[in-house]
Amino acid sequence: MVPVINAYSLANYTFGTKDHKMEKDTSVRDRLSRMKTNYMKEGMRTSVEGILLVQEHNHPHILLLQIGNTFCKLPGGRVKPGESEIEGLKRKLSSKLSATSAGVQPEWEIGECVGTWWRPNFETVMYPYCPPHITKPKECKKLFVVHLPEKEYFAVPKNLKLLAVSLFELYDNVQRYGPVISTIPQQLSRFHFNMLEAECISGV
Amino acid sequence: MVPVINAYSLANYTFGTKDHKMEKDTSVRDRLSRMKTNYMKEGMRTSVEGILLVQEHNHPHILLLQIGNTFCKLPGGRVKPGESEIEGLKRKLSSKLSATSAGVQPEWEIGECVGTWWRPNFETVMYPYCPPHITKPKECKKLFVVHLPEKEYFAVPKNLKLLAVSLFELYDNVQRYGPVISTIPQQLSRFHFNMLEAECISGV
Repeated sequence: MVPVINAYSLANYTFGTKDHKMEKDTSVRDRLSRMKTNYMKEGMRTSVEGILLVQEHNHPHILLLQIGNTFCKLPGGRVKPGESEIEGLKRKLSSKLSATSAGVQPEWEIGECVGTWWRPNFETVMYPYCPPHITKPKECKKLFVVHLPEKEYFAVPKNLKLLAVSLFELYDNVQRYGPVISTIPQQLSRFHFNMLEAECISGV
Repeated sequence: MVPVINAYSLANYTFGTKDHKMEKDTSVRDRLSRMKTNYMKEGMRTSVEGILLVQEHNHPHILLLQIGNTFCKLPGGRVKPGESEIEGLKRKLSSKLSATSAGVQPEWEIGECVGTWWRPNFETVMYPYCPPHITKPKECKKLFVVHLPEKEYFAVPKNLKLLAVSLFELYDNVQRYGPVISTIPQQLSRFHFNMLEAECISGV
C-alpha cells in the first residue's frame, strides 16, 4: 500500500498575476521581533506550508515562490487562533496563489503531513524534532502535500515569482534552498508518483 | 490524525552477544561487483532496513549497528526473490538482532515505510527518487519503522556494536552517518513520539 501522488504536467496549469503581496517584515530581525510579540499574546506559533507537485519530463517538480532573486519559500503561513491547520493552509494557498474573485477559488485538497519542524527559540534555526530540554518551543511548522487537480489557474502576486523546481535540483542543495525545502525529496520518497498528461485523463 | 510511535526507555531492553556475522564483502569494490552479478541473475535488488526507536531522557534514539570504529548501518538487508519486503525485513532483523534459539524470536511489528532510496548505477551513490532518464535502477532500498514491544532481548553479533543514537546527533550529520541515516529525523518528523517508561505500562 504505497501512497500515491498524481503529478500532472506543468503544461496543464495556467499562470497569471495579481496585486503585490508584501512581506509583513522587511528584515529577519523584524520578523523575529514580531514573532516574540505574537508569542506573548497567543503562545506557540503554528504555521503550515503546502507542497504542490507537478511533473516535467516525467520527474516530479515542486512549486516554490521566489522573493527577489534568491530566497524561495513554500506557499503557506501562520494558522490563526481557533483555525484548524487545514483551514489555515487553504486560506494561505488562496491568498498566495488564487485569483481574487471568489468565483474561481480552487478546491484545495490537502493531503498527508510529510514533515514537522520546531523552532526552539526566537531565532532562525529550526529542527525536525523538538530538541531535548525544550519545553516551550516558539513555533511548530507543518508541511502538507497538496493534491492538485488536473488543471488549475494560479494568480501569483506581482512581487513574487512561481517556480517549478525538480526534486533533483532540491536534493542535497541546502545552500540554495535551506534545510526545510532541501530535504523535501527524502520526505516524499515513500510516495509513488503517477506522472500524468492532460491527454491521459480527459481525452482532450 | 498524527501517526504515533511508542518509544520505550532504552533501559527496558537487554542486550547480549552471539556469533560473528561477517560482511559478505570486504571492500566497496567487491560489494558493487557482487551487486552486478546478482543484477544479471535477478534484476533490480530490493533491500529493506528497520528503524528501531527507543528513548533516553525523553528524546528519540535509533538503534544502529556499528562495524569497526566508524561505519554505522541500520539492521536489514536484501529481500530474496519471491519474498515480500515485510518477510525479508523480519528475517533480516532476526538474523542481526535475535538470539539464535528459535523459541525467543521477537514478533517483529513492521510499521510504516518512511523512505525509499534508489541506486541508479553500480555505484555507491543513492537518491531519494529515481533520477530522470534512469529506466533501469539497480537497487531500491526501503526504510520501515519497526514498532518495538515494551521489553525485548537483543543478541548482537560479536563483530558488531549496537548503538542508540539520538535524532539530535543524526540531524545534519551527513559526514558521520551518510545521506540515508542522517535524514531519518526529517522522515520521522511527521510522527508523534510517546515517550514511555516500563513503569508507566506494566506497573512493575
